[in-house]
Amino acid sequence: MIIALDGMGGDNAPGEIIAGALLSLSEFEDIHIHIYGNEEKMAQYLKEHPRLKVIHCTEKIEAEDEPVRAIRRKKDASMVRMAQAVKDGTADACVSAGNTGALMAAGLFIVGRIEGIDRPALAPTLPTIDGQGFVFLDVGANSDAKPAHLQQYAIMGSIYAEKVRGIQTPRVGLLNIGTEVGKGNDLTKAAYDLLSEAPIQFVGNVESRDILSGPADVIVTDGFTGNMVLKTIEGTALGFFSMLKEVYGASLKSKLSAAMVKDGLKGLKKKMDYTEYGGAGLFGLNSPVIKAHGSSNANAILNAIRQARTMVEFDVCGTIRRTVGKVEAE
Amino acid sequence: MIIALDGMGGDNAPGEIIAGALLSLSEFEDIHIHIYGNEEKMAQYLKEHPRLKVIHCTEKIEAEDEPVRAIRRKKDASMVRMAQAVKDGTADACVSAGNTGALMAAGLFIVGRIEGIDRPALAPTLPTIDGQGFVFLDVGANSDAKPAHLQQYAIMGSIYAEKVRGIQTPRVGLLNIGTEVGKGNDLTKAAYDLLSEAPIQFVGNVESRDILSGPADVIVTDGFTGNMVLKTIEGTALGFFSMLKEVYGASLKSKLSAAMVKDGLKGLKKKMDYTEYGGAGLFGLNSPVIKAHGSSNANAILNAIRQARTMVEFDVCGTIRRTVGKVEAE
Repeated sequence: MIIALDGMGGDNAPGEIIAGALLSLSEFEDIHIHIYGNEEKMAQYLKEHPRLKVIHCTEKIEAEDEPVRAIRRKKDASMVRMAQAVKDGTADACVSAGNTGALMAAGLFIVGRIEGIDRPALAPTLPTIDGQGFVFLDVGANSDAKPAHLQQYAIMGSIYAEKVRGIQTPRVGLLNIGTEVGKGNDLTKAAYDLLSEAPIQFVGNVESRDILSGPADVIVTDGFTGNMVLKTIEGTALGFFSMLKEVYGASLKSKLSAAMVKDGLKGLKKKMDYTEYGGAGLFGLNSPVIKAHGSSNANAILNAIRQARTMVEFDVCGTIRRTVGKVEAE
Repeated sequence: MIIALDGMGGDNAPGEIIAGALLSLSEFEDIHIHIYGNEEKMAQYLKEHPRLKVIHCTEKIEAEDEPVRAIRRKKDASMVRMAQAVKDGTADACVSAGNTGALMAAGLFIVGRIEGIDRPALAPTLPTIDGQGFVFLDVGANSDAKPAHLQQYAIMGSIYAEKVRGIQTPRVGLLNIGTEVGKGNDLTKAAYDLLSEAPIQFVGNVESRDILSGPADVIVTDGFTGNMVLKTIEGTALGFFSMLKEVYGASLKSKLSAAMVKDGLKGLKKKMDYTEYGGAGLFGLNSPVIKAHGSSNANAILNAIRQARTMVEFDVCGTIRRTVGKVEAE
């Protein structure tokens, strides 16, 4: 199995990307890593390894690049070459911590969609209070969606949760502003019916207030709402931590207090760290494409590579292709 | 000035509702309160007061009632009689902590919309880290919205922020999944242009990740998204507090730690308590209709009555009528 890696994408590239790659080669004996990037810049971090190959690229996608244009013009960018390798079969899957929009464009225009899938979906796994986590999609591959797209997201999310997260019959919920049937806007009211007919275990509407308590293993929404909810969780958590810091910094007594629960608070932060689950999968493409968090360290990259490997091992894309093909035929 | 109050709505009715009414009569010498509800149930809490009038009602809107049907059938419900009083001019404004959907139906069908306003909007004021707060609308009066509705929300929110919150030139932001112009779904892309043309200080797109940091005094969105974001903030904060409790409860040492920062944490909780700002206004109706939080205590009811009084004093509804009338004419 060959996993293509974007050595130049992300805040901590190439050092942490390479370190993550080496960790993964230690952990998994059945993978080869092809790392794409500027050889000069990567040199100081690279180590010789029989299953590590380096492919030199002269260009790079920047964080501020306009996605579609960048993918089309920077033909020798590490991200583009990486996606091309997956497209032409040189690699089985790819991982990048770079510009999300560009990776989605590379997925759409280079790797390509599974036949029958209209919209790919960006799908991170988020933590829950009990530690089980849930797959959340779409969080921004597309801003607008039709009810049929939500049905496809549900099917893809369910297959992933089963094969990669090891959940036997994943519960799939529809993110909505109320739990009762018939609630929601035009999109969710129509999607509810389609999800009820899909080959999944549909548990009905779930409210955003409850998602971190684990009411479902897969939660489906349109990309605008998903992105909005994800950013709201991030902003609220960050705001909370910063207000907590203020409380703790307020006096010597409170600083002492903080020291006493330091481990507990660290554990809480770790719990909320969704890079523990890997990156966000871009579901609906011909091969696994993983978006690792922009600030990924070596461990986050390791988790993302592990995720890609599992998707290949259990043929998630093939299963989606066969399942969606079946649903379309009905 | 007469403020009509629903004595039977909310988890802590009628006791806390009456207590809040009495507090407001002490604080404001220029108001009369007409409290609607079951006299027998209210008797033990009531006190004689020259500016307090009690109107007996034989019915009540329950939390689980289907809103529109309940408003139409339970003609002697406290909430219905209260709204009717505003409609026929017996009262200048009304406050209820009862069934939100029913209050919105009462607002729409009994109090009625300002001419030119297509959709009323439910608008709470949320806290920010710096304590200034912001008006957020719509959080659920309507699930779907067109770009022109968002423009109306922006104008109404701006008038309220100026007259009731005392902000001279309120900054109005459009809730979106990115700050750059051209970002978003079809609705927000179109709304951006309309907000740029409105008689407001439009500061552009704001991301949900940042709203608690106060980038705008008024933030506009459609009811589905607003409700979703509000519930996400609530759920994340609650989840956080409960995980924090676990950290603190874990050992004697951590329990001691909690005791040491008890006041600071209480202050944090108070900061996040948006009932400090009053209730959620239902903007776009002929007279002020305030939805107080379901779990309102006497202090929250006092704040909601204060809010209603200020809206009447500064003729918010009249200003909306004149401003929207002007925009429509252009």
